[in-house]
Amino acid sequence: MVAHGPVSLDDLGAAARESSRVLARSSSSQRDDALRVAADLLESQVEQILAVNAGDVATAEADGATPTVLDRLRLDGNRVAAMAAGLRTVAGLADPLGRVVAGWVRPNGLRVSQVRVPLGVVGIIYENRPNVTSDAFGLCLKAGNAVLLRGSSSALATNGVIVGLLKEGVTKAGLPAGSVGFLAEASHESAVAFMRATGTIDCLVPRGGPALIAAVREHATVPYVIDGDGNCHVFVDASADLAMAESIVVNAKTQRPGVCNAMETLLVHRSIAPTFLPRVATALEGVELRGDETTCALVPGAVAATEADWATEYLAPVLAVRVVDDLDGALDHIARYGSGHSEAIVTSDVAAADRFTAEVDAAAVLVNASTRFVDGEELGLGAEIGISTQKLHARGPMGLEALTSVRWVVRGDGQVRR
Amino acid sequence: MVAHGPVSLDDLGAAARESSRVLARSSSSQRDDALRVAADLLESQVEQILAVNAGDVATAEADGATPTVLDRLRLDGNRVAAMAAGLRTVAGLADPLGRVVAGWVRPNGLRVSQVRVPLGVVGIIYENRPNVTSDAFGLCLKAGNAVLLRGSSSALATNGVIVGLLKEGVTKAGLPAGSVGFLAEASHESAVAFMRATGTIDCLVPRGGPALIAAVREHATVPYVIDGDGNCHVFVDASADLAMAESIVVNAKTQRPGVCNAMETLLVHRSIAPTFLPRVATALEGVELRGDETTCALVPGAVAATEADWATEYLAPVLAVRVVDDLDGALDHIARYGSGHSEAIVTSDVAAADRFTAEVDAAAVLVNASTRFVDGEELGLGAEIGISTQKLHARGPMGLEALTSVRWVVRGDGQVRR
Repeated sequence: MVAHGPVSLDDLGAAARESSRVLARSSSSQRDDALRVAADLLESQVEQILAVNAGDVATAEADGATPTVLDRLRLDGNRVAAMAAGLRTVAGLADPLGRVVAGWVRPNGLRVSQVRVPLGVVGIIYENRPNVTSDAFGLCLKAGNAVLLRGSSSALATNGVIVGLLKEGVTKAGLPAGSVGFLAEASHESAVAFMRATGTIDCLVPRGGPALIAAVREHATVPYVIDGDGNCHVFVDASADLAMAESIVVNAKTQRPGVCNAMETLLVHRSIAPTFLPRVATALEGVELRGDETTCALVPGAVAATEADWATEYLAPVLAVRVVDDLDGALDHIARYGSGHSEAIVTSDVAAADRFTAEVDAAAVLVNASTRFVDGEELGLGAEIGISTQKLHARGPMGLEALTSVRWVVRGDGQVRR
Repeated sequence: MVAHGPVSLDDLGAAARESSRVLARSSSSQRDDALRVAADLLESQVEQILAVNAGDVATAEADGATPTVLDRLRLDGNRVAAMAAGLRTVAGLADPLGRVVAGWVRPNGLRVSQVRVPLGVVGIIYENRPNVTSDAFGLCLKAGNAVLLRGSSSALATNGVIVGLLKEGVTKAGLPAGSVGFLAEASHESAVAFMRATGTIDCLVPRGGPALIAAVREHATVPYVIDGDGNCHVFVDASADLAMAESIVVNAKTQRPGVCNAMETLLVHRSIAPTFLPRVATALEGVELRGDETTCALVPGAVAATEADWATEYLAPVLAVRVVDDLDGALDHIARYGSGHSEAIVTSDVAAADRFTAEVDAAAVLVNASTRFVDGEELGLGAEIGISTQKLHARGPMGLEALTSVRWVVRGDGQVRR
């Protein structure tokens, strides 16, 4: 472990900026080496990591942290192994840098191209999970960025030891130690200063709950990408294969209810509601159903939904259910209540599928598939740093490309403008 | 002219949101028709526009506006004709929507694609120039977006009459009037409310000076793209063709000194400074030179530069000049003082050109060409809504693509996640 005390954001930022210039001209094999060495170090130092983490957990427990927080904070051998494996997976991905995105020759002979380059310095502000420390580092470094990390106070010691090992991996691969900076101070003021570090942070990626996202919107002056709520819908159309619809609805709701791409509201076409709703209600045993009037009439166990239910991301085995007159009814409901994350239709009607994919304004629209597939690995991006619900820069699962920018390169032989 | 009184931002926003759903499913020929009809209306109503504008100009003059402000505010027949021509040019560009950016099939059979879609509602906040009203409208509508416009108080009446004609063009083409919304109120409070209209504005594009940009950074909670300063450099390397270097330097400084892609600092390799500097100083007659010690020794007319000169965007016939020891000296100077806009090298050395394009962190890097080419039309984007100096979403000249987002479309046949 490399020893390090609290360092100011200004100093960390200056080191990160300087390091980002070196990273921008580093080779991908050098960056991949750093990731693999860091992975080895995490594994070889697992006892030390777990010992320090046990201290953080004990302190948090004494401070009255909830079981959920404690679970997120706690590491074990498997979790550390997963962190190391994650770094190796990222090392194995294709280098996103240097790709020519577009290019052409102008009438005056200027050769114009747009080339993928690093963002520079990426800031990550996150909550309890210490695995974010190495996951975020891995993706940022792979994409040629220096990274500044600001985790929660409860995980300070754990994050500190992890960052020490990551730094060791970076320096052993011949890259500057400043490529990874850790703000070893977790006050509210330090979070706000982090969000306002214009000129230091090129892109901020907050990883956390609604309170963190709201704070970023309120305070940030640096550019950021928001990983927002997922109030996701599945619309079962009149023409749906009901067995397929049942399977997708059950999967979207129950396979992992606590995540952002789980379904929160089921919309059912009126013509099939009498057949489908009782059937799917049985299949959703253990899920609390909150329905509109028609649903409650068809499903004895359902309770009446309120207006608030349509807008709620439960992240729990609770499902809002509404019967709509037609596709337009479903589109209107989603336009009004959806959070722009993931929206699915189950249908065998090409025209309905086409309208749904064309008109639903969300990061991901799915036809005849579970919303749970909206994830960087499942969609084939290799890894993800989050799922953007904003429309700028990156939308939906953010892989390595979301951690890059482009640069215009213009080559001439003396052209001047007339 | 369509009559309209002040409407609240909430009402304008709701109409824009509703209209954006219609625009998202409109055909490009419908949107192009709207642009062409609007262009015809601007031309046919030029007398009315100029009469209203004369009133705005007289009021501003009575209020003590500077000649620069008055010039920006004032329209004439040529300026209105240019606005109409701009709309027709945009109508003739290729539709950016519906393009498949990427796509593949997953091992489980899911067909994944990433499709270009509109942003939704674009907010434009701008200063005196009334031509921005139609220019911004044209680009936003072409890219399938509704647009909310908030101009300056000095141009309220002029912008009102222009927006009325644009609305008429939109409705005549069968698109909703809410596709263009105009905030007919120009208080500071209304500007701040505009910047904080989360859920109403999907992307804010400020068009104005440093004070406006600073206000956006401070207050905005909606996503935005910054059109920032251009402290641009030209580095004349040891191996440069000196005639080419002279021509590029003169063009980059003098062809139009008041714009963001004009050169502000000239960097010269020490080995050629004694030959090149006196020569280029003669060619730059009428430009005030502020040089480092070596420059002042070589160029009798140069005055001593201060630290502030290296960081200043003059936007005037003033040039800072510094002699550097080598390419590294130029790279260090640019890394320290550059604003990330446009940076050029004049060289005949391939290795120097390659290092410069790889290592300079700017929206555009140029080899043997004038910085003045960094412009949407000059680079071949057809038109531009601004030049982004941030690294997220869009960097450098922003054409139609910068006014779009992407959506993931996932098609399956019943896939669920295991």
